[in-house]
Amino acid sequence: MAGTALRVAGRQLSQHSGAGARVLLRQMFEPKSCTYTYLLGDRESREAILIDPVLETAPRDAQLVKELGLRLLYAGQSGQDSWWREADVGLGILRALPPPPCLPRTPCPPGPGLLSLPVNTHCHADHITGSGLLRSLLPGCQSVISRLSGAQADIHIEDGQSIHFGRFALETRASPGHTPGCVTFVLSDHSMAFTGDALLIRGCGRTDFQQGCAKTLYHSVHEKIFTLPGDCLIYPAHDYHGLTVSTVEEERTLNPRLTLSCEEFIKVMDNLNLPKPKQIDFAVPANLRCGIQTPPS
Amino acid sequence: MAGTALRVAGRQLSQHSGAGARVLLRQMFEPKSCTYTYLLGDRESREAILIDPVLETAPRDAQLVKELGLRLLYAGQSGQDSWWREADVGLGILRALPPPPCLPRTPCPPGPGLLSLPVNTHCHADHITGSGLLRSLLPGCQSVISRLSGAQADIHIEDGQSIHFGRFALETRASPGHTPGCVTFVLSDHSMAFTGDALLIRGCGRTDFQQGCAKTLYHSVHEKIFTLPGDCLIYPAHDYHGLTVSTVEEERTLNPRLTLSCEEFIKVMDNLNLPKPKQIDFAVPANLRCGIQTPPS
Repeated sequence: MAGTALRVAGRQLSQHSGAGARVLLRQMFEPKSCTYTYLLGDRESREAILIDPVLETAPRDAQLVKELGLRLLYAGQSGQDSWWREADVGLGILRALPPPPCLPRTPCPPGPGLLSLPVNTHCHADHITGSGLLRSLLPGCQSVISRLSGAQADIHIEDGQSIHFGRFALETRASPGHTPGCVTFVLSDHSMAFTGDALLIRGCGRTDFQQGCAKTLYHSVHEKIFTLPGDCLIYPAHDYHGLTVSTVEEERTLNPRLTLSCEEFIKVMDNLNLPKPKQIDFAVPANLRCGIQTPPS
Repeated sequence: MAGTALRVAGRQLSQHSGAGARVLLRQMFEPKSCTYTYLLGDRESREAILIDPVLETAPRDAQLVKELGLRLLYAGQSGQDSWWREADVGLGILRALPPPPCLPRTPCPPGPGLLSLPVNTHCHADHITGSGLLRSLLPGCQSVISRLSGAQADIHIEDGQSIHFGRFALETRASPGHTPGCVTFVLSDHSMAFTGDALLIRGCGRTDFQQGCAKTLYHSVHEKIFTLPGDCLIYPAHDYHGLTVSTVEEERTLNPRLTLSCEEFIKVMDNLNLPKPKQIDFAVPANLRCGIQTPPS
């Protein structure tokens, strides 16, 4: 695999461009929980971030990271997210805890691969994060989670902090309501937002467990996400209908829940009568420990 | 729904940019056959194309087309693809058969929506095309298929012909081997290619049924797809691991089958010993009739 990484490191990687940004973006799907994991990278610096990895598909993600010549720096989840950290023995990378408002920027050491960082949008109740497994598959990452998540992690992020990878940065926007610790990550040029379970395509996360609050979620979406440019791409943590992306303007005008008044929204959310998530009893405790039992370094 | 289309028609639609292109792109997933359907549009002209729709998810696709203010013009499949055509009673659009090398360009009538065209990359053996159902859900489309597919359709396309939608065009590149009628659609700026089953992410379509031929497929991929720019995005008709996109350079260097010599490739493909596709006995006959029993207009 090291040979593969060496072989492909210098090539022109694929890029999705938002409003002027030239970031490497790969969206990946986990079918059991219908979760999307996102790999974002900067091919020049070789730094990258992995948002919301899933335990079952962590080996796939690790393979792609290696194939694309990336190296993993952080892993985590937004919300009650678990990120993880480990000394990068192989590459000699170890990042310090971040001073607000930005996570620290350690110069990327010379090498063939991109430096990659797994990140989670929240402490999911429907699957176990892949952050823990990725720590062992791709040494050199740090666990990161929002402070309000209450979960263990090496780095706790807060609203307004930025996470840098190469020439790019993700703004952290607290978007509680599905859980108290949910965050939305917004690419610094506002061309794309990774909304976790706060805002889904034509839907939103439920608010009937994990200290959820419909009123809080409504204000989070309207004040932290719908204030982004209309053509900002919305990449959610889940989709159950095979859709992959939306825009702020689409959800502002077409989302059947978020176009309601706050009072109507609360009424709808309070009467969904959904069954308890199948994996919640073991997924949440596991995710509070970053997906595996290994404590943060 | 008409009201919805009116309401959102003028807004800034999401755009994925390739190498300078600014095309609306939506990738959609059908989980049973792991098929990707692609919606490409031009928000200025409101014309759009739907590549490889699936019967089960055609209602979803039709809803998205309407929500985004698109109007459907063609539907089809590459390979032994079935496209379909019907007089656009509601909008007064009827396109003539195409003179090579381009499908005809009829001026888009004034209206709030984008004009949309469903297209298929080949006559799939693993699912029934959604083109037929879309014809009834979104009146105004034409069925198109490669002449070599042997399938019924209103329009038969050939290698080298282009399909225009607004300011954009898809080049048709014959890429037989999985089936004799398979084609790859390449956006005219060569920023993205829709490869059907000819080239999958780290894989390729099988060649042991539907007159498949490993040697032919090998030359198709190397001569028609691998000759595209290295950063050209590869969007396949299927992925079974949750991956969504690759690039020409990635597949040129990492595809475990297509990096082999032609002789080694043939040996691998001739010894896959895969089970017969579950749906082949009813999918292929249905797709030869465009997915439904209604003959072309």
